[in-house]
Formats: sequence, C-alpha cells, structure tokens
Amino acid sequence: MEKLKIADKEFTSRLFIGTGKYSSNADMAKAIDASGSEMVTVALRRVDIRNENDDMLAAVDRDRCVLLPNTSGARDGEEAVRLARLTRAASGINWVKLEVTPDPYYLLPDGGETLKAAETLVNDGFVVLPYINADPILAKKLQDVGTATVMPLASPIGSNQGLTTRAAIEIIIEQATVPVVVDAGLGLPSHAAEAMEMGADAVLVNTAIATAGDPAAMAEAFKLATEAGRTAYLAGKAAISKTANASSPLTGFLRD
Amino acid sequence: MEKLKIADKEFTSRLFIGTGKYSSNADMAKAIDASGSEMVTVALRRVDIRNENDDMLAAVDRDRCVLLPNTSGARDGEEAVRLARLTRAASGINWVKLEVTPDPYYLLPDGGETLKAAETLVNDGFVVLPYINADPILAKKLQDVGTATVMPLASPIGSNQGLTTRAAIEIIIEQATVPVVVDAGLGLPSHAAEAMEMGADAVLVNTAIATAGDPAAMAEAFKLATEAGRTAYLAGKAAISKTANASSPLTGFLRD
Amino acid sequence: MEKLKIADKEFTSRLFIGTGKYSSNADMAKAIDASGSEMVTVALRRVDIRNENDDMLAAVDRDRCVLLPNTSGARDGEEAVRLARLTRAASGINWVKLEVTPDPYYLLPDGGETLKAAETLVNDGFVVLPYINADPILAKKLQDVGTATVMPLASPIGSNQGLTTRAAIEIIIEQATVPVVVDAGLGLPSHAAEAMEMGADAVLVNTAIATAGDPAAMAEAFKLATEAGRTAYLAGKAAISKTANASSPLTGFLRD
Amino acid sequence: MEKLKIADKEFTSRLFIGTGKYSSNADMAKAIDASGSEMVTVALRRVDIRNENDDMLAAVDRDRCVLLPNTSGARDGEEAVRLARLTRAASGINWVKLEVTPDPYYLLPDGGETLKAAETLVNDGFVVLPYINADPILAKKLQDVGTATVMPLASPIGSNQGLTTRAAIEIIIEQATVPVVVDAGLGLPSHAAEAMEMGADAVLVNTAIATAGDPAAMAEAFKLATEAGRTAYLAGKAAISKTANASSPLTGFLRD
Repeated sequence: MEKLKIADKEFTSRLFIGTGKYSSNADMAKAIDASGSEMVTVALRRVDIRNENDDMLAAVDRDRCVLLPNTSGARDGEEAVRLARLTRAASGINWVKLEVTPDPYYLLPDGGETLKAAETLVNDGFVVLPYINADPILAKKLQDVGTATVMPLASPIGSNQGLTTRAAIEIIIEQATVPVVVDAGLGLPSHAAEAMEMGADAVLVNTAIATAGDPAAMAEAFKLATEAGRTAYLAGKAAISKTANASSPLTGFLRD
Repeated sequence: MEKLKIADKEFTSRLFIGTGKYSSNADMAKAIDASGSEMVTVALRRVDIRNENDDMLAAVDRDRCVLLPNTSGARDGEEAVRLARLTRAASGINWVKLEVTPDPYYLLPDGGETLKAAETLVNDGFVVLPYINADPILAKKLQDVGTATVMPLASPIGSNQGLTTRAAIEIIIEQATVPVVVDAGLGLPSHAAEAMEMGADAVLVNTAIATAGDPAAMAEAFKLATEAGRTAYLAGKAAISKTANASSPLTGFLRD
Repeated sequence: MEKLKIADKEFTSRLFIGTGKYSSNADMAKAIDASGSEMVTVALRRVDIRNENDDMLAAVDRDRCVLLPNTSGARDGEEAVRLARLTRAASGINWVKLEVTPDPYYLLPDGGETLKAAETLVNDGFVVLPYINADPILAKKLQDVGTATVMPLASPIGSNQGLTTRAAIEIIIEQATVPVVVDAGLGLPSHAAEAMEMGADAVLVNTAIATAGDPAAMAEAFKLATEAGRTAYLAGKAAISKTANASSPLTGFLRD
Repeated sequence: MEKLKIADKEFTSRLFIGTGKYSSNADMAKAIDASGSEMVTVALRRVDIRNENDDMLAAVDRDRCVLLPNTSGARDGEEAVRLARLTRAASGINWVKLEVTPDPYYLLPDGGETLKAAETLVNDGFVVLPYINADPILAKKLQDVGTATVMPLASPIGSNQGLTTRAAIEIIIEQATVPVVVDAGLGLPSHAAEAMEMGADAVLVNTAIATAGDPAAMAEAFKLATEAGRTAYLAGKAAISKTANASSPLTGFLRD
C-alpha cells in the first residue's frame, strides 16, 4: 500500500499508538508490537528521554518506531514550548505532538494557545503535530504556519465515544494539505475504520487499547481495522441508497 | 482464532459473500478470493446448479467455499420451499439461505412466511439459514424450530446504510443459541467491524463489495474489518466514559 | 389543524397516553390533563373496567378521552383475544390496543401471534390497534386484515431510547394506508417531534411522562412537541445540505 | 415560565430568528410573528439600519423584538469590529451578534479572530453574542472576556443537519456561566427541542424556517418545539434504560 509521508519520514502503518494507562510496560510492549505501529507517542514528563534504560523507552522498538514526544499536561502554549525544547535538548528529537489542555477534566485542546505554540516551534525547527478540536478554520491556520499534520479529536481523550465530530472532520479532510490524523476518543476498531474510510490519513489510539481486556489482541484489532478503512477508501466506496437493491436479481425461471 | 460452527461445518472466516451485481464473473472470482470467505451464497434461480461448467459456479473455489443456495425472489414460503427442494434434487446441496420477500421494492423479509418455510425445510432435512427482520421474538422462534443460524438484516438489502437495527440486533445476539449472522445493508468495512464487535458470529456482504470501485480491494477490506471486529470482541472492549481520561497522566516534573 | 381519524372517531390531539407507572392517580390525572390527549390506554388487567368508581378510571376525563383498553401482559394471541372479549363484555368498549409479548424482559411484540389475534378480533367486530415491531411487511399484513392503525415501536417499552427503528418506520409510513402511531420507547419530546416530522400520524407515550420529575410538565412538553412535529411535517421541511448556505447573503457595502 | 436574561434584557421566548433567505419581506414578517420571537438578527450589510422605512426593518415588530445586528460576511476580527461600530453610530444599537467567517464555503467561524474582536467590542461597551464552533475552551475564554452569551454551532450555517456537535455542546452547557444559544444548522423542530432538552438557554434558527414550504407554519413549529424542549428540561427527564420496563405492570387476574 502507498506510504504515508509526514515531514521527511515515511510510514507503512497508519496506526499511531500512545503509551499511557497500560498496567505494565510488558503489556505495553506486547501491544505496540501487535499494533504494527511505527509511531509511538510518549509524555515528555513521564519518561527520562535521555535515559536509554528508562523502562518505558525500553519497551518501544526504536528500530521500527518513531518516538513522538508529546506535551501532555501543558496548560498553555509557553509551557508546551518549554517542554518541547527541554526534550529536544536532552534527546535530539525534534518531532513533537503538541498538546495544550488548560482544562484537566475533559482535556480539550486550547486552539489559540496551540496555534501560537505551533508557530513558535515550527520557526524553531520542530516538526509539529498539533492535537486540536475538530475546527476546520483552525486546521487551515495550523497548516499555514507549517505544521506537519493536523490531529483533530474524535471525542474527548480517553472517552472511547468514537467519532462524535464526524461532520467537522469531513470538512477538515476535504480542505487539508497536510496529513489528517484523527486523535483521541476512538474507542473501537470500527471507529478507526470509519475515520480511515472518510479519508483520514492515520489514526492515533491509546486508551481503547491500553485499557482493553487483552491489550495486545485489541492492538491487533485496531491494526486490522485501520488497514481495512484505508483499503476501503482507496477501493472506492459503493453508493448508499434509500431503497433496496436486490443482490440477486432474477431471471425467474420458476415464475415464467 | 476459534472457529465458527454452523450445523456440522466449521469456518475460519466469518465473512460470508454474495454473488449478485458483479460486473463480470472474473471480478467476482477475484473478490471472493480476496475476501477469504468460505461461504458463498448464490441465487438458485440464477445458476444452473447442476452444471459444473456454469460460469458463475466456476468462479467459486469449491474446495474452500461452501456453496449456500438462497431462495432470493421467493414471494412466499411455499415458493421458497419449492425452490429449495428443486435445488437439492439437482445438486445434492441441503443447505439453504431462506429468503422470502413479497415486496420487490425494499425486499424486506416476511417473518411469518419465513417461519413456516423454515419449519417445513428443517423437517425435510435442510440446514436452514433464514434472512429476517431484526426481530428478537422471531429469531427465538426460528432457533426453536431448528434453524442453523438467524440472519437479521442491518438495513434493506443493497442499501449500504449500515447498522440501522443496532438496538434490536443487540438483543438478538444476547438471546441467541445459534450463530447470529448480520445480513444485508452493511455498506462499509466499519459496519461489519461494528457488527462483530457487538458479538455477531459472522456477517454477509454483497452489494458493498460487488459495486465498489475495486471489488477485490473492497473484499479484502471487509475481510480485515471482520477479523478486527471479532478480535476486538474477544479482547474485551474498553469502557466508554463521558469525561476525558488522560492517556498520559503525569508526574509533573516541570510544575513541581 | 386537520383531525386524525381512526375508525369512526376523530382526534384533535395526536398524543396518546398510557397509564402505567405513575406514583399516584392524582399525578396521572394532572398529566393526562396537561397532555391534552384524547386517547388514553389502560391495562385491562389493572382496572375494573365495569366499575366507574375505580380510582384509575376516575382519573380519566371520559368526556374528552377515548379509553383504549390494552392487552398488556398477554403472552400469546389467544390470551389477548380472551382479554379483549372479557373487557368488551364488561364495559361495552370494542376498541383494543393489541399487545402480545411473550418475553417479559424486553416486552417485544410477537408478530405472528399479533397477526392471528388481530384477524380474529377484527372479524369479531373490534377496532384493533396493534403494537408491533417496526416491520413493514407485518404492518402491511395487519392493515390488510383490517386493523385500524399500526403501532410500530421506537425502541423497547419503557426504555426511553427514542427512535432506534427510524429506517424501518420511514418505510412503514411510506406504505401505510391506515394511521401509523409510533409507540414505545419515545423518551423525550424531541423524539416525539421527530416521529411526527417523519410523517407519523400520532405517538403514544407513557414511561417518559410518568417517570419524569414533574409528570404534568413533561406531559405538556410532549403535547407541544407532538404539535411541533405535525406542524413541521405539514409546513414542508427545508432541504438538508452538506455545505453551508449563508443565512445572510450580502451586498457587501463595506467591501465595495 | 422563567425568563431568559441576557445582559440587561429579559426574554420570554427562547427562539431567536434570522432574517436571511426569505422569498419576501411579507413572508418574513408572518414567520417572525408566528415564531413569537423577541430577538431578531439582521445582517448589518443588508439593511439601512438608520432608515426606519427600510422594508426589512419595517417587517420586524420593534415593540416586541430586540433587533440584533450581526457581522455576517466579516472575514476577520477587524472587519467585524468596524462593522459593529458603524452600525452603532448609525442606529444607537450596541448589541452585536459577532460572526467572523473567513471561509465562504462552509461559513465556519474563526475562533481566534472572534475572541480578539469580542474583547475589543466588550471593552468598547458592546453587548457581544459570539457565533462559535462548538469549542468548550473557546467558550470559556469568551465568557471570561465578558461576552453576554456563547453561540456554538450545531452544524454548518444553512445546512439543516441538526446537532452534529452534540457531545461538545453538552460540555459547553455544563461549564457555561453565560447563556448558551445553539446557533446554525438546526434544521427541524426536533433539533431545537433536543438542544433545549440538553439545557441550552435558547436557539437561533433561520434557514430551516425561511426555506420551508410554509415559513410561518414552520416558525410556529419551532416555537412549540423550543418551548417543549425547555419545559422538558425543567420537568426532569426520565431515565434511559437498556431493557424494557412494562408501562402496564399487572396483577394478572386472568392468569391467577
């Protein structure tokens, strides 16, 4: 299948994975492996990114996976910028998933602060992947300041509610000139498939896998569903109709 | 993965395929192959089931696939029974997908006639897989007269509208003692995944594949999605919540 | 507004009301009054329909409201027929809301038994209003045996889930030659409005009113919503579009 | 019913009306009258707000209705501010519905520009009612700079798609300290009722009424539905359940 290109990197897998909420690093390692993911996001604050022996980092296969530090927990743009710079200084990684979430209850993103921080970070040489509300105007502004993707939310982080922002995400996809990664709230493989069928370039999933009964099995399910959705998008969807269309039209030998 | 058992046969694939509406038998053969399906339904009236050289039958790999004759086009129970018997006499096949559709516009099934015909055919030694409205009471009656599955519709045949009968299918699945195969109206791989996540035992797809831009690619997409949904069901779904749950809880080294 | 005619009776209100689950008969009387309903259904088994002093019956304004006995609790057609006849003998009322529900858990209707009982009761001179699954083929058969309405369910009785059977009810409305009354599961006034906007002739509501915080206020809300939906249906709905259409197109005096 | 208070004005009606897209001013006058609305928004660019004889203004009953100028067509915050000031200078009206829509295709609002303009206008003595994406963080920022309401969109202006932003609007309502007016995209009375049932303080409707077959009748339908939704919200909604709850529990005299 054709590859997804973000900045200068190419990805075969269109399923991005988060690293929060796993019961153990061993479970996480198995799930990441089963997911086939090549992009793994990690909270800057939770790992010692300079330390190759950090347990969490050790669980990520760095040969296969790009490590995508995120600014989870940043409450405003300045804090996010500071976090990103600290991480780059320590690790040399200049990719950042930009998250600015002033409200600790729903963890919804602050569009204005995200835009300011994105501009600063882009100018500072970062490859910026911003987490945003499903706001088509904001998505355009972000791509205009040079972000590498836009990452609209499907529903609040960790809620597993699925694509509650379907209508807006359709518009974002239609208007985007950078890859659209649907992030947050995808709770089931069918949600991921639906986002991909709509034309999203990738999806990011964390809670739905990490808190499943069997995270590695669920990771595989999301892998299959993401591929299914992408394949269907490329295959050209059949038309929806209101009335029935017999699958088995007849010559009617009996009735004749 | 654990196999699906219907009557005395076991299936690895949980995606059943129809044979109507393809542009050519060659396209159909490629799509069936890509789908990985082991159960292919065919309208009794459209093929000469005695003729191994019939073009359509030649397109089905009989080593891998069970051929499931259907009574498509039957307007009442008697006609369906007659069709099934003629086919068995000619072919030796005693499996039948029972379809009774008096209304040619929406092709919705007639529950009463279906129940009568099912009882007759079961008593006559057939393995009966009835196509029905998503009616939990009718589903119970059918399993009580000995049908091998129940096949509730997702939406009108060929409409590609997806799971418009979600609430009723949940109840059918909860109460069923025979495999539940969601049939008709599944228009996208995400719809198939959703049905499987809900606990359906299999899905049957025709129009969404046959009329896709690239039927073989779409068949593969449905294959992946069906596996994704089944895998997710077995993995144990994560809980849905109204509020956010941070995927990346923090120790907050910066703020401390 | 044009009246609704069922058999030989005309109704100004298109909101039918049930009488179960109220905390008190006084509450019920207030709610029925606020609803403006002219059709009140009552379980045959719960009231002594011969006794004008029965507390529940006393709560219904018989000058305004038609009393519609229902066969709630009947597990098969014969039991329903017996109940209807007993009631007619005692009360002289020959209208009956036919309910046949073998399953005590979801109380879903049994289509086959309902059809048999309906035919018997119609031939016996009853005005029959059958409660059914949202099954278009069954709805046609019932009107063909002479029922005065069909009453498809929106979702399981008392579940307040709203119109989970939207797609099938649209087809029933399109094909019906008798009034279509959407029954069971309407949980909010917006659900009732939606059913009426789709072209339903009336709605029946019980649990959503009886178990509301303030039943009389909720009854009034359903009254308004039912009228809103009917008015909108007659007014001719505006078209849905995918893209925006400026409500305020401009001559643009500033930009000129 | 309790009144809605915005800034220093009180409203009995919770249905706000737009003035675009009517076939004639006569049709508009009838629809506004039937709607019972006390708040009518008008595009600054379309009317000569100084001219009492302007046909459109003459169609609005100024004794009953507050005239709410809007900045429809403004592509950035500065343009919106300029428009608002011009109008106030000419008319003395210091209320403004703030709309900033850079994209002429979907007319989606620009959150950043809206926030800047809102702050300027509030500081300049305006009563500001901003039209926004369903973005809870932005809604909080706007109320923090002193807007009199927030007006999140249900779906793109004029699309009649209804509440596609349900999940986000629920959060906005939960967190708001100013009235929440659901604006744009409400296509049917049931959509308005649903918004009000969720706890919105008011709704604004234009296209669905102006382009209905009979605008005055549709206006009345929205009036009823808005009242229905508000009444239901205050009455306390009944609980939703998965299983059935018999409306007519029985003592079962026949079976005993």
